[in-house]
Amino acid sequence: MEFEALSSSELSAYLRSVPAVYALLNEPGETGDLDIAEVGDGNLNFVYFASNARAPERSVVVKQAPPFLRLVGKSWPLTRHRMEREVAALQRFGALCPQHVPRVYHADSDLFLMVMQRLSSHRILRQALMDGIVYPKLAAHLSTYLAHTLFYGSDLFLAPDVKKHAVSDAVNTELCKITEDLVFTYPFEDHPSNVYSPAFPRAEIERLRQSPALRLAVADMKWSFMNDAETLLHGDLHTGSIMVNEDETYVIDPEFAFYGPMGFDIGAVLANLLLAYFSRDWHDREQDTALQLHADGVPYRDWLLEQVSAVWSGFEKTFLKLWRVHESRRKSHFIGDDPGGVCVEAYRARFMRRLLAQSLGFAGCKMIRRIVGMAKVADITSIADHSLRAAVEVRVLRCAERLLVERDAIDGIAQVLAIAREAQAGGRAS
Amino acid sequence: MEFEALSSSELSAYLRSVPAVYALLNEPGETGDLDIAEVGDGNLNFVYFASNARAPERSVVVKQAPPFLRLVGKSWPLTRHRMEREVAALQRFGALCPQHVPRVYHADSDLFLMVMQRLSSHRILRQALMDGIVYPKLAAHLSTYLAHTLFYGSDLFLAPDVKKHAVSDAVNTELCKITEDLVFTYPFEDHPSNVYSPAFPRAEIERLRQSPALRLAVADMKWSFMNDAETLLHGDLHTGSIMVNEDETYVIDPEFAFYGPMGFDIGAVLANLLLAYFSRDWHDREQDTALQLHADGVPYRDWLLEQVSAVWSGFEKTFLKLWRVHESRRKSHFIGDDPGGVCVEAYRARFMRRLLAQSLGFAGCKMIRRIVGMAKVADITSIADHSLRAAVEVRVLRCAERLLVERDAIDGIAQVLAIAREAQAGGRAS
Repeated sequence: MEFEALSSSELSAYLRSVPAVYALLNEPGETGDLDIAEVGDGNLNFVYFASNARAPERSVVVKQAPPFLRLVGKSWPLTRHRMEREVAALQRFGALCPQHVPRVYHADSDLFLMVMQRLSSHRILRQALMDGIVYPKLAAHLSTYLAHTLFYGSDLFLAPDVKKHAVSDAVNTELCKITEDLVFTYPFEDHPSNVYSPAFPRAEIERLRQSPALRLAVADMKWSFMNDAETLLHGDLHTGSIMVNEDETYVIDPEFAFYGPMGFDIGAVLANLLLAYFSRDWHDREQDTALQLHADGVPYRDWLLEQVSAVWSGFEKTFLKLWRVHESRRKSHFIGDDPGGVCVEAYRARFMRRLLAQSLGFAGCKMIRRIVGMAKVADITSIADHSLRAAVEVRVLRCAERLLVERDAIDGIAQVLAIAREAQAGGRAS
Repeated sequence: MEFEALSSSELSAYLRSVPAVYALLNEPGETGDLDIAEVGDGNLNFVYFASNARAPERSVVVKQAPPFLRLVGKSWPLTRHRMEREVAALQRFGALCPQHVPRVYHADSDLFLMVMQRLSSHRILRQALMDGIVYPKLAAHLSTYLAHTLFYGSDLFLAPDVKKHAVSDAVNTELCKITEDLVFTYPFEDHPSNVYSPAFPRAEIERLRQSPALRLAVADMKWSFMNDAETLLHGDLHTGSIMVNEDETYVIDPEFAFYGPMGFDIGAVLANLLLAYFSRDWHDREQDTALQLHADGVPYRDWLLEQVSAVWSGFEKTFLKLWRVHESRRKSHFIGDDPGGVCVEAYRARFMRRLLAQSLGFAGCKMIRRIVGMAKVADITSIADHSLRAAVEVRVLRCAERLLVERDAIDGIAQVLAIAREAQAGGRAS
């Protein structure tokens, strides 16, 4: 049967038939009309706001998975069971980190549809960063989210049998395949899905395809993505999957969730902050924010780099704390007993350094695919000046390449900031 | 219901009731008595030879899993479903490499029992190596087995969805837990399961527990074992799981099979060849083989080291050949298109170097557990001279430690041989 998106009246009727949802949308004893608005701008699904027409603050989000990739259309079929994966991930992440994950009110496994919390006072982070808004709690929230979700899904916390069954339950072949192709493979090939901006230099395309050091690093990251079942990942944690206001931060849309390498989620956040950073050449000019100093006297561009540092440092600190507290309570260590504690702490330091390198490798891959791959980001595509856009894109690529190639030698997040600044200044571009 | 091992008459009656087995054990139209002999000396299962009493060349092996670890007894319960895992692995490996895997004639998922090919002219490799026997084809056979099983289970060959479901189907929590504990954890703790030989130096115990470089390297390997779902492994590929004669080599007992890091199987083979090498101080003396030169004029001890080199080199060559042929046929590469082929070949070289390092790390862990852990190897335990045994054990530990700690800097198998020779000579022991 051909898939048809639900009409407003069909969706209204459906939502009235679900008591839990009905109670959220109406005052007790009242039956109001529902306003339905299709708002999906995502790549995958249909998304609606359903609100009480007389009390619009009573509102929910409805998300339905069509049997194809919405960005491309019916020519790219996708299983509708991805909705079950997303519901399971939202519930799992919500249990681990309720303050940063929207609540699921209802899930329908026949219609591949769910009803979830409406975040009506929140904006998509990507757009807010383009607008030059400072969120003082953002880095603390994101690092908390990352530390809790990545730690509690891993062998550092779960019993080995529980973890192995969780890996098995979270297999997500179709959506992983999209990442394997669009992030790790096509951008480095002469592939029809690639899109280059009008003034993008031809020599950069060749460089992406023919630089052995870069291709090897990307292949390492692809192998890691496909093989390292370290924890339950969000799987697509860019700034379009984050909603913010002054006080709150929510991570949405985990349909790509699967058991993969921890650095993939961290790298996605870092990559998108860096894309925002490099795009300031345009947005500062448009908004005249270049010289606008924020409360602490820092230009917005620098505030973005500070977030790169703060997200990693906050993550590292919180993750290590969760790890230490857990092992202290359990009275045993992942590495085995260590009465002096020297080896345990040395292993933690090594683990975090390895994780930083892994995160930077994934960040590099995600930056590159946003420049030359099919799915772009508005930070970059909104740059109307072709020549400036190409210059920004080349800086992103230079930074990404260095993160990938030098990742194992980078010994702290400060070095990442230095690499970004050098790429911005055009320095060390060979 | 309490488990009772089958009596001879029960097993005879059972085997007669299975037509496929009956046909193997009897001439057409004949019904002979069966001789049943319990021969299991393994750690896990009950194993029987069932033979036609009048035509003993008509013979099969019967293997049954009791609901516990046989080595320890009923106090260590284990799911009997491990037999299904073993049957599935034998069938998979048999399809990939029929010349090196015994055939399964019959599997009974109610009795957790299987009937398989009897290898009557073959010996367990460990015992044969203790006896100083040269097998000219051994390294070629083992490298072929390793290359085929490790390559065809991986993302280098399988479609990504097939691979992910294979990972899920091969989850083997209980037997992986045994490895996680007995190989990667207990040997480095003050754990009651550890067993130290009578003259084993106390300082060596402290060194294993308190050397940060060693503990970190072992923790890295434990993390890799638990997270890197690279291919379907045998999971316990020591020289007691290999049967040989002059012309043939078979790999048996894959009940530990699961999706894990490729280097775990390779490391197991290398570790056990090295254990055999270090044990020659005793066996050469006992057998007076020290100066016996084999056909090619090489002392047995050196022949063992040559096998370390030949297994790795043969594996590398065959694995690369399978990889190149597959990608050439498929007209696509794991890393994506690469018209010049330079990046593809550079990635293959990098992949093999990473795999050698991983294999050496696992080899080191497996050598250490055989010295201080619960499950020993006869190469070492048969050394009746306490002082000599302790000296051999310390050399094994020195070699293992260097393989673990230096693994990322080792750039070829020749360096491994040099490390083994230095440990044997007592050189560079700090």
